[in-house]
Formats: sequence, structure tokens, C-alpha cells
Amino acid sequence: MSISEKRSAQQLRDQGKAAFERLGVPADDARLCADLLVMADLFGLTTHGLSRLESYGERLRIGGINPKPAIQIERAANAVIKVDGDNGLGPVVGMRTLQATMDAAREHGVAVGFARGSNHFGPISPYLYEAAQAGFVSLVCSNATTTIAPWGGSDARLGNNPLGFGAPGDDGNHFMLDMAISVAARAKIRSALRDGTSIPETWATDAKGNPTTDPAKALEGFLQPMGGYKGYGLALMVDLLAGVMSDAAYLTHVKSWVDAPDEPQNLGHFFLLIDAKVLGPNGWLLSRMKDFMMILHASESANPDRPVLVPGEIELGRMRDRLRDGIDVDAAVLGLLN
Amino acid sequence: MSISEKRSAQQLRDQGKAAFERLGVPADDARLCADLLVMADLFGLTTHGLSRLESYGERLRIGGINPKPAIQIERAANAVIKVDGDNGLGPVVGMRTLQATMDAAREHGVAVGFARGSNHFGPISPYLYEAAQAGFVSLVCSNATTTIAPWGGSDARLGNNPLGFGAPGDDGNHFMLDMAISVAARAKIRSALRDGTSIPETWATDAKGNPTTDPAKALEGFLQPMGGYKGYGLALMVDLLAGVMSDAAYLTHVKSWVDAPDEPQNLGHFFLLIDAKVLGPNGWLLSRMKDFMMILHASESANPDRPVLVPGEIELGRMRDRLRDGIDVDAAVLGLLN
Repeated sequence: MSISEKRSAQQLRDQGKAAFERLGVPADDARLCADLLVMADLFGLTTHGLSRLESYGERLRIGGINPKPAIQIERAANAVIKVDGDNGLGPVVGMRTLQATMDAAREHGVAVGFARGSNHFGPISPYLYEAAQAGFVSLVCSNATTTIAPWGGSDARLGNNPLGFGAPGDDGNHFMLDMAISVAARAKIRSALRDGTSIPETWATDAKGNPTTDPAKALEGFLQPMGGYKGYGLALMVDLLAGVMSDAAYLTHVKSWVDAPDEPQNLGHFFLLIDAKVLGPNGWLLSRMKDFMMILHASESANPDRPVLVPGEIELGRMRDRLRDGIDVDAAVLGLLN
Repeated sequence: MSISEKRSAQQLRDQGKAAFERLGVPADDARLCADLLVMADLFGLTTHGLSRLESYGERLRIGGINPKPAIQIERAANAVIKVDGDNGLGPVVGMRTLQATMDAAREHGVAVGFARGSNHFGPISPYLYEAAQAGFVSLVCSNATTTIAPWGGSDARLGNNPLGFGAPGDDGNHFMLDMAISVAARAKIRSALRDGTSIPETWATDAKGNPTTDPAKALEGFLQPMGGYKGYGLALMVDLLAGVMSDAAYLTHVKSWVDAPDEPQNLGHFFLLIDAKVLGPNGWLLSRMKDFMMILHASESANPDRPVLVPGEIELGRMRDRLRDGIDVDAAVLGLLN
């Protein structure tokens, strides 16, 4: 039986911070991490919100994640930041890299940040949001544990790597695209198995790498990238930027946090930040963004109940509602917080 | 009846240059444009190679493209290049923007280039190749005439925007991902109609925006983006970078070169260049790239006749063969050259 309770975002930020402090994380880092996870909950991305206290907490307790990392930030060139996260919490390494990269982009118009020695850094939307609020266009990505086979291959050698893109919108209506590379999540395949239905043959392969419509075989096999070889290529692009070029682990060098929770994963992240104010006069980009979204919204929807949306619109709408009405927090998460 | 003849790459570059000069293009620009299109033919991307002399030539003749543009290159910030292509040939505007952006990236480690006032700039692989040969990681994209409906919408409001990513590989084995956003090209739907077969329901929608397996209805409708709303989001990301932020046209503001060949399209392009040598010591990235590709190739293929490939491998293999053996040139293209 699952009972949920309403909490305000500020209550959750404070409780989340206290929970991370109890796990040995210094106050500033605990604040950063809790704020990011609560933002995920505000956006409705609950699988990447405070519920992560469970896996983050376990790994902090058994030494898989370093609660007090000595994060090193270095300028490899005027506009290139390299960060060694010292196996700290992913959201802490991610936010510190974002901040350093924004600082460099303020000086040079654009900057890139490469982080290594990191861990799961939460969903991407909060980084896009912070960047957009500060007036930056952003491209953010991370590599991940291997769950996808190379296109045409037969074993898991790449991650379901997340990729996000954001741009400041008029009146806070930012563009925020936050996506992973697989056609469908494994949870959807498990649902199909439970319901006794078949799955589309584009979702997954069996253990030998052949497309299958049988959810049981799919769960023994691999997720398929969206768009076939195109998604395969995009997942590789992310791993090249976030893993190879950052000096982190990549492909099969990435350790699984499920199989080896006590070992450092050495995940990598990549950030591109462009200072919007160098692109045109004050207000210029925002008025173009507004027109851009109006053109999309003006397309009559094929299904009258499902209007055309712009990426980020759903999440920002939920955030507005939840800042006003509070956030429904699951009993399991309330337990973690106490 | 189509007869093809063998030509060396150098013969084609010289003949292509002469053809553009006869269309009023200055020698340096004609050289740049011919070299890029011949590189497309070397890669086997024949629909984007010298065959484009037909559409480029028609638009040059009727004033749709400016043969002698005054291209303006401006630094909007230390590492941000803005280019006004003055409605010149796309490959000329594209290559000049690439060069200026590489110059800025040499100074600052990274730079971005935004081009406006441009036209179809060929395939993306030649830009990725030039960048990789010069030691740069690159992300390159362009917007395009509208052929895709917003996700859930019912009329064409975004382009089948191409996106590419490249990185220098060991011994010239560069990573080169060059993809458009649609699941399938319209040519494949026309083939299905000819053969009387149905198409997968993920390829296209009918004129009202509903998915269809009927190729006739699909040809009256719209191409579908790969991965559904994810591909929709990626196409928008490209248009934001290449169109909105470059001060070019975007979405429905882009004119069709088929419907209005005598009017400027004001297409936009985006380039991100990262100088690989700032990322690590000499040879460091190349040895990681080699390991990266070895890991992928080592995945046993599901179909023994189709080994696992890395993006760019097919194109670079064709280039090696064709530089040695010459390029088969279609009679229609030979006609355009003479």
C-alpha cells in the first residue's frame, strides 16, 4: 500500500539536504544535490528525483561514491574546462562543472566543460533550466552503464546515454529537450510481459541481437536505439564527448553500479554553453524564441485532445503547479528522508 | 539508358570548378564548391555530389543564388563567429564558416560559428572530414525546407534537418556521423508505392497527421521523425542552433527552393569546433579513439554477413577505393559538367 503526502519544494530541499548530510556529505554539496533532485520532482521526473536517495545513499554508505570529494577544476584552454570529480556525487560534479563552464562562456561567448570521475548526475533538465535561467544555450550529455548493443551486434557495449538541449525562452518558457537514446524504457517491456502483450519489433532484440516482439526474450536481450543506426550513432557521439574526450570511462569500461556498487564508475559528462547575449541585441533571441514556439503551437493537432507541444512545456507546467500546490511525495521516499 | 564513365577525383574537381566558373562563380569559390561536391562523390553520397550542379546551376542562372557574394565574417565574441553568406552557394558559405570557426577554436580551444543567408550546403560529411583532418572534433548542422509536421501536428513546419558529428581517428579512421532526422527518405516511400507494398507505420503520416502504412497516403502527408517526439525534438534543436540563433530563417520562414527557386532561402548553419590537442597529450585522443572502435568491432554480429560498423567507416572505405580506382560518373552528371 503506497500512501503519498504533500510537501512544499522548500521542505523537501531542506529534508533532502539533511539526509545527504547524515550520509557524510558537506553542507554545500548536500544543498546542491538536494536542490537538483527536488527540481527533478518539480518537473515530474520522479524516477530521477529524491527517490534516488536510495541508490545514492547505498553507494555513499559502502564507499562506492566519495562523500567528500576534492573536485579539481582546470582550464585546458581559454574556453575549455576539465573537471576531475574525484568520484563525488554526480549532481555535485555536474553542477560544479556547469558553473565553471558558464563562467568561461561569459568571458569568451562559448565554453565546453568535460567532467570525469563522476557518477549518475540526475536528469538533464535541471542543468538545462539553470543554464537557461542564467541566459545560456546549453547542450548537456552523460554516458551510462552499458545496456545497448552496437547496431547489428550481439552484446551490450554502449549506454542508454542521455542527451539534452536547452535555450532561454520568453517569460521563462525555455526550450528543454531531455532524452535518452532507446526507443522505449525497460519498464515498458516489463509491463508488456505482465499484460501478456507483444511489443513492437523496434523496441528490443533477443540475447543474440535479433529484433523480437516477445517481451520475455526482449528482457534477456538489449534495448534498441531509436532510429536504428542513427540512434546508435547518437549514443556513440554522447560517449565520445562525455566519456572518451573527458578522460572518463567509456563503452564497456564503464562499471555497472548495480553489479559493483562499491566501485567507482568513472562516468563522464559534457557541457556546451553559449552566452545568448552575444548572439544579438537585448530581447532579440527571446522574441525569436517566442515566434518559433508560436509557429509550432499553431499546427492543428491530429488528435484534438493532444495539442502540439514544445519540449520542456510539460515539465515547466508541472513545476509551476507544484511550486504553488506542493509535491506529492511517495511513502517510500518519505521513509528515505526520515 | 544510363551510361557511366570513370573519372579521377582530380579530373572531376577541375571540371566541376570550370562548370561553376561558367555560371559566374569566382575561381576560389568555384574550387571550394567543386572540391566539396567531389568529396561527397568519393564518399558515395551521390545525391549530394556533383549531381547538385543541376539545382545549384539553375538557381545561379535565375538569380536564386548569388554567384559573387560579399561574405561577411564577424566575431561576436572571442570564440563566437557570425557569418552573413549574402545568399552565396551553400558549400562556399559553409566552408568559409568552418575555416573561420577553426581559426577561433585554435586560439580558445573551442569556438562556434553561426551562418545565415546561405543555401543547401551539400552533405555534412565533408565538413566533418576537413575538421577531423585538421585535428578538430566537430558538430555541424543545417536547417532545411519544411517537410515534417510537429509531433502530433498536421502540417509541415520543420525541415528534415541534417546533423553531423565528427572526431579525429587513428590513422585517418575518423568517426563521422551524418544523419537527417526522418525515419526514411521519401524516395523509399515512392519505391513502396511502385512495388505495391505497404510501409512501416513509423515512416510517415497521411495529410491529416495520422500514421499510415499506405505509401500513396504517405506521399500526400509528412515524413515522420525517427524516435517520434525525440526526433521532433532533435530537429528543433538543429533549427534553433542553425536558424534561430544564426539570424537565418527558421521553420516555416524557410522558403522552398523547389517552389520559389529564384528567391533567397536564407538557410542557416551551425558549427561547433573543439581543438583535440587541448584535451590531452599528443596521441592520447587517437589511442582512445582506436580502443573505442575496437570495442565496437569486437561485438559479434547478429548476422555474420553484416559486421558491426562505426559511423564513417563505409564512406572512408569508399573514398580510399575511389581515389585509387576512379569514380563512376553518371551520364547525366557528365552532361552537366560539359
